[in-house]
Formats: sequence, C-alpha cells, structure tokens
Amino acid sequence: MTADINARRLLDRIEAFASIGGNAGGGVSREGFSASDLEARERLSKEAQLGGMDAAVDAAGNVLIRRPGGGRGAESRRVLLIGSHLDTVANGGRLDGAYGVLAGLEVMQTIVESGAEPAYEPVLVAFANEEGALFPQPFWGSTVLAGALEMLPDDPRDHDGRSLRRPLALAGGDLAALSTAVWLAESVAAYLELHVEQGPVLERSGRPIGVVDSITGRTLLTVEVRGSAGHAGTTPMNLRRDPLPTAARIVLAAQDLACERRLCRVTTVGWVEVHPNSPNTIADSVRLTIDLRDSDPSRLENAEEALRTSLASLDKQADVHIDIRVDTRAAPVATDPALRAAITASADELGLPHQTLPSGAGHDAQIVARIAPIGMIFVPSIGGVSHVPEEDTADTDLLAGARVLLRTVLRL
Amino acid sequence: MTADINARRLLDRIEAFASIGGNAGGGVSREGFSASDLEARERLSKEAQLGGMDAAVDAAGNVLIRRPGGGRGAESRRVLLIGSHLDTVANGGRLDGAYGVLAGLEVMQTIVESGAEPAYEPVLVAFANEEGALFPQPFWGSTVLAGALEMLPDDPRDHDGRSLRRPLALAGGDLAALSTAVWLAESVAAYLELHVEQGPVLERSGRPIGVVDSITGRTLLTVEVRGSAGHAGTTPMNLRRDPLPTAARIVLAAQDLACERRLCRVTTVGWVEVHPNSPNTIADSVRLTIDLRDSDPSRLENAEEALRTSLASLDKQADVHIDIRVDTRAAPVATDPALRAAITASADELGLPHQTLPSGAGHDAQIVARIAPIGMIFVPSIGGVSHVPEEDTADTDLLAGARVLLRTVLRL
Repeated sequence: MTADINARRLLDRIEAFASIGGNAGGGVSREGFSASDLEARERLSKEAQLGGMDAAVDAAGNVLIRRPGGGRGAESRRVLLIGSHLDTVANGGRLDGAYGVLAGLEVMQTIVESGAEPAYEPVLVAFANEEGALFPQPFWGSTVLAGALEMLPDDPRDHDGRSLRRPLALAGGDLAALSTAVWLAESVAAYLELHVEQGPVLERSGRPIGVVDSITGRTLLTVEVRGSAGHAGTTPMNLRRDPLPTAARIVLAAQDLACERRLCRVTTVGWVEVHPNSPNTIADSVRLTIDLRDSDPSRLENAEEALRTSLASLDKQADVHIDIRVDTRAAPVATDPALRAAITASADELGLPHQTLPSGAGHDAQIVARIAPIGMIFVPSIGGVSHVPEEDTADTDLLAGARVLLRTVLRL
Repeated sequence: MTADINARRLLDRIEAFASIGGNAGGGVSREGFSASDLEARERLSKEAQLGGMDAAVDAAGNVLIRRPGGGRGAESRRVLLIGSHLDTVANGGRLDGAYGVLAGLEVMQTIVESGAEPAYEPVLVAFANEEGALFPQPFWGSTVLAGALEMLPDDPRDHDGRSLRRPLALAGGDLAALSTAVWLAESVAAYLELHVEQGPVLERSGRPIGVVDSITGRTLLTVEVRGSAGHAGTTPMNLRRDPLPTAARIVLAAQDLACERRLCRVTTVGWVEVHPNSPNTIADSVRLTIDLRDSDPSRLENAEEALRTSLASLDKQADVHIDIRVDTRAAPVATDPALRAAITASADELGLPHQTLPSGAGHDAQIVARIAPIGMIFVPSIGGVSHVPEEDTADTDLLAGARVLLRTVLRL
C-alpha cells in the first residue's frame, strides 16, 4: 500500500484559505502584498509548522516549506521544487494558485507522515505576487528565485507610485537583498506545479488530468495617454487635449490585434485609470494595461511591434502624448518531456484519464524553466472560467490532481 | 461716500479657504459632502458668526447666512438671495464656487458694518454639492431650495452605491426632511451669483466684468456596459463578453456628437470606472458619464436622442448590455433683463469695462431660476481654464467683481 493524501485535510484547507480575503459574493481579493495576502502566507507557514515542517521567507517574499533538516542526507541531494502562489487578482477565485500550494503542502505532509524518502529533496514554494494585481510585476517571486533580476525594475512600484519596499518588508522580504533569494540551476532537479486549467478543454473532454506541454508567452504593457484637463462646459471641442478618445482608440486597436488582424492569440485591456476622473472635468491622463499572449515567440514580438505602430500613428493624430512601458515580457516555454512522462505514468497508475494540452494562462513554472526542467498538471475548471468568483473545480478532481502530484514526486 | 468692501479681508479669506482640501500641486479637492467640504462649510459659518451674522444649515445641507434678526423689518421684506457653492471637482481650482460665496460674505459683512438697509433682505447661501463630484446629483442644494424635488432620486447614492443619508446628516442636513428646505417663489425677489468665467472670453476682450445673458443647458448621463469577467489568458476572443471595447466605442460616439455631427456644443466623458480593473482579468462592467451641453434646449434633446440611437445600435452589435441612467437634465435658462441692467449700471458707476456673454458652465443660478429672476456676474479666468489647479483670476478682477456685486445688491 503506497502513501495517500488526507483528502479531508486538503479540502478543509482549501475552504479555510478561501475565507482569507474572501468577498461577500464568493470571490477572493488577495492581491500580492495586500494585507490578506500577508495573512494567507502567515497561515501557510503556521500550517506547515503544525504539520511538522520548517517554513521560511526569502528576500523576495516567497514562502519556502521543507522537511525538518531537509530530510535524510539532504545536503547531498538536489531539490524537487513544488510550487504555485497564494495571491489572487481582485475579486478572483479561490483555486487559482492556492490549490497548487495547498495540494503541495498536503503532498509534503503525506511524505513526512509516511517516512518516505524520495530521490530528490521535496521543497514547497508559495511564490510572491504571481498575478501582479497591485504591483504590476507579475511572477515577482519566481523571477527572483530563477535569478532573472534584470527583468525587474530596481524600485518596483504600484500604479499609484508606492514602492514595494515596505510591503515586501512586512511580508518578511528585503528589497535590498534579492540576490540572496536566487537559486542556482544545479541545485534544482525539477519543478512541478499543479493548477486549475482556467479554460474549457478538460471539462469538454471529460478527463480529470491535464499534462501541460507548453505555457503561453505574455507581454504586458502599460500605456499612458497625456493631455490637458479643463472644464467640461467651457472648453470648446477644438481647444481640447482630451486623452480619453485616444485611449478609446487604443482599446479598439488592442482588440483588433487578436480579433481582426489575428497577430496573436488573445489581447486584453483589463485595467484603466482616468485622472482626475470627474464627470465635469476633461481628463488630463489615462493609463491602461494591454496584455498580449501567444505560444509562438515570434508572433508575440510581431504583435507588439504592430501595436506600437498603431500607437505611434494615434500619437500623431491627436494633440496628446502616448508613452509605453513594458511591465512583463514572458516568453512561451515548453515543459520537460521526462516530467510529462512521469505525470502521465502517475495518472495511469491511479486509473485517471488524462490528456496533453497547452496552458493559455501564464504560470510561475515558465519563469522557473530558466533554471530547471518544469512539469505542470492541470485539473478541470467548471465552465472554463477563472479570475472570477465563479471559478471552481469538483472535489474529486481536486483530489485527483493532488494524488497525481504525490505519485509524480515519489516516482522521480 | 458709499460703502466699500474690505479688499484684504476678502483676498485673505479666499487664500484661507484654498487650503481646505488643498493638494500639494495647488489644486483643491473638496468634493461635495467630503470631509474637506464639511470643514469648509463649518469655517464659513464660523466666519459669518465672527462677522456679526447668523449661520444655519437647512435639510439639504445648504449653509444660509443672514443678518441678525434678518435686519430691520425683515419679516415684511422679500429676500435678495446671493449664492454660489464651496464644493469643487477632484483636484479643481480654488475659485470655482468659493469666490462667489466668499465675495457674498464680504458683501454681507460690509452691509452689516455700514448699517445700510437694502430694499430686499440680503441672504447668502452656500449651496451643497453643486459639482456632483462624489454624489452624482449636481446642483443638489439649489434643486432642493427651488423645490424641484421631483428631479432628485429618493435615495441618492454615490458611484459606489453609498447613500447620501449619513454624509448629509454629518453636514447638518436631513434626507427625510428635504421639503423643509424648499423656498416659496414669492419669498425671493431675486438671486445674484458672482463666479469666475471658466472660459476665455473676458480675458481675450480685456474686460473685467461679464454680464451673463444665459446659462448653458446640461444633460448628464451615466452609462453602464455589462459583460462577463474571465481570465485574460485562457478565454478565447470569440467566447468573450468584454464590455470595454463597447465602452470605447461609446466614448468615441459621444465625442462625435459635438465634433463631427455638431449636434450640441460640447460633450465630455470625464469619469470611467472599470470593474474589477485588473490587468489579468477581462472586465465584467464599465461605467462612464456622458456630459452634453448646449444653450438651445431642442438641440440638447436631439443630441441626447442621437446618442441613445448610437448606444442602441452598439447594444445590438456586441454580446453586452447597455443601460443609461439620467443623472441631470438642466435646461438652458436666460437671466433677468432688470438684473442685467442693474449689474451693468453698477459696473458703469465703478468705471469697470463690461460685456454681455453666455455661460458655458452650469451654475446653481439656473436652478434657482425656477423660483426667482436670476442675475450672474463673471470675472475673467486666466488662460480660460477651470476645474484644474491652474484656475486663477487676477486680484484686481476678484475685487472688481465683489464691488459690482455689492453695488448691485444696494441698488436693487
């Protein structure tokens, strides 16, 4: 009889964490480095310690969970990293990220309780600020851990200009010591991430397990359009420098990139801020984010280039100024064939139907791929939705995913 | 020698009030029923009392300043109402509204100190929430005073759904007793309002005094576009119900009404709110305000009708729903010829060049016009700008305006 997870404990923990930052309508607002995010990370450390493990926070604010002393002979062993994130988008779901972390904790605890000694030392990581909801540096924690510090701004700030310094310190991190959180490639044997699919593929096929073959690339831009404020009643139309109509044209140009011109798979403007945002005042600035995604790196580059050309043309048409800032350029990445095979074999062993599919969403795994082979396991999303309060997965599927993760860890 | 205002006292008061809600960049954020607005209204009452007058707050939150006992024989005399407002837009200027109230206070105090007995009893009113910056019920206070209660919602709320009930109570008002704040037409002989022009006409002509002949009409609509939220990476473009591209088309349609189609003088979208407003999430709703202005009531009606037709067409094109709410329909109004003549004669007496002009901005005067003849005096706006921190008027012009107001009150 091989070790099995404690199903009740896992489901109870998922329920408990859903209430941290939980909204009246069932959604979760646990934006990275918000108060509720800090609460969830502290709760994770406490649960790990109660379960007989050690918990620590690195300089980037990542929570790292290990077996006491790292298990037998840990010094000489490479690490099998298991991870995901606890932060959410504003009013998102309870599973995106948290499911992978809590299932990882359950797998760690099962290994501790069973006395099993896997070939690689399992370490669980809850990456800081994967979503970038408050601080527009998504994949923050995994980017630091993977040593890609050059991808990050020196002084990360939120959309209102507040520095990350203090929120990071409150989480137990240290902006001045990020290099201490970097892991060397030779220390990590593999990285595994279990996640809800967030799309409709598995639900439609009726298979509980997805074996991810690639993760979409993502370019996130913040565009600012600047004009001049004025009184809405007394400023003639021909004397206005209103940034909002130009911002509206940018929204439509971004949509056209994917819909009409088909230059990349999807584009989204999800965040818009108008200043001063008063019905009676012509705006002086509008900022918005443009999110471009594709699995083909050259298509992603071409789409960004085409967008920049459109924006340059809009910049000339109206008496406003357009600035473009690159927040993220995450390249598409493939998962490791050997890890895919291990996940497939584990699902087969458990009698769970599975299928190979790409990930339309970005994940910390794509960043960790810079230093280690990565594998990803998906479970079905009901209705294919995510980043909304309705995000959900059947309990049996949640348990199936955790069991495949456990078997894969023990198999490697 | 006729009575004259105390120039230093007026300019000092304007300076002092600019600091209530004053921002680092020189702007003023004193939105109606905000904490700083309450502070300014309390300060006004205190200044009036120190100046030997009585101050009271009516159920709508209007501050009313009278001479003690209403002056000699007040019971039998009709009232000459002098007014404007203390609230501002977000990060607006220090003069829009506050100048008229503080010049009115100076006129009242000069009359008290001089012992003059005008034919009509002068009463100063600082109207509550003229701008509608927080609570989208602009002209709130004057609408109640003029008895136009049918124009107001039963349970006024801000854009986040918070009721006006408590903020109004904090200001000394009472939402359940609005009818006690209504004035009868027979009690008001005339209404005078002194204001900065907020446009470029007087500055360009070099004349310090404007005699307003009409006030623009304004229709303010709040439009909501509702779709479905979803994950920005996993939701295919053809399965999206994203309200933002439709909102972008509405912004452009609103601009076209005035720019291309010339159906009304100006249109402005100044306020936009995207929900949940996260870079990684397709929005589920977008709300925005559309402000239409014209001095011709039939043009204003036609423009609104044309806009509604455009929105109905957009509603059919995409799989989203568009709702339109009317926040305000303020008809254009003409000022009273006798009051215009009195203002003109006062300016002539003071040797101040003047000219007749329309008001492109809305004012409480247009609401009070329902119960009394109205007159408005303008002074030049430097650069023609308003609703911005740079809003300003030369001290000599501020004093000239107050002197014309005093002479007009004494003349009537």
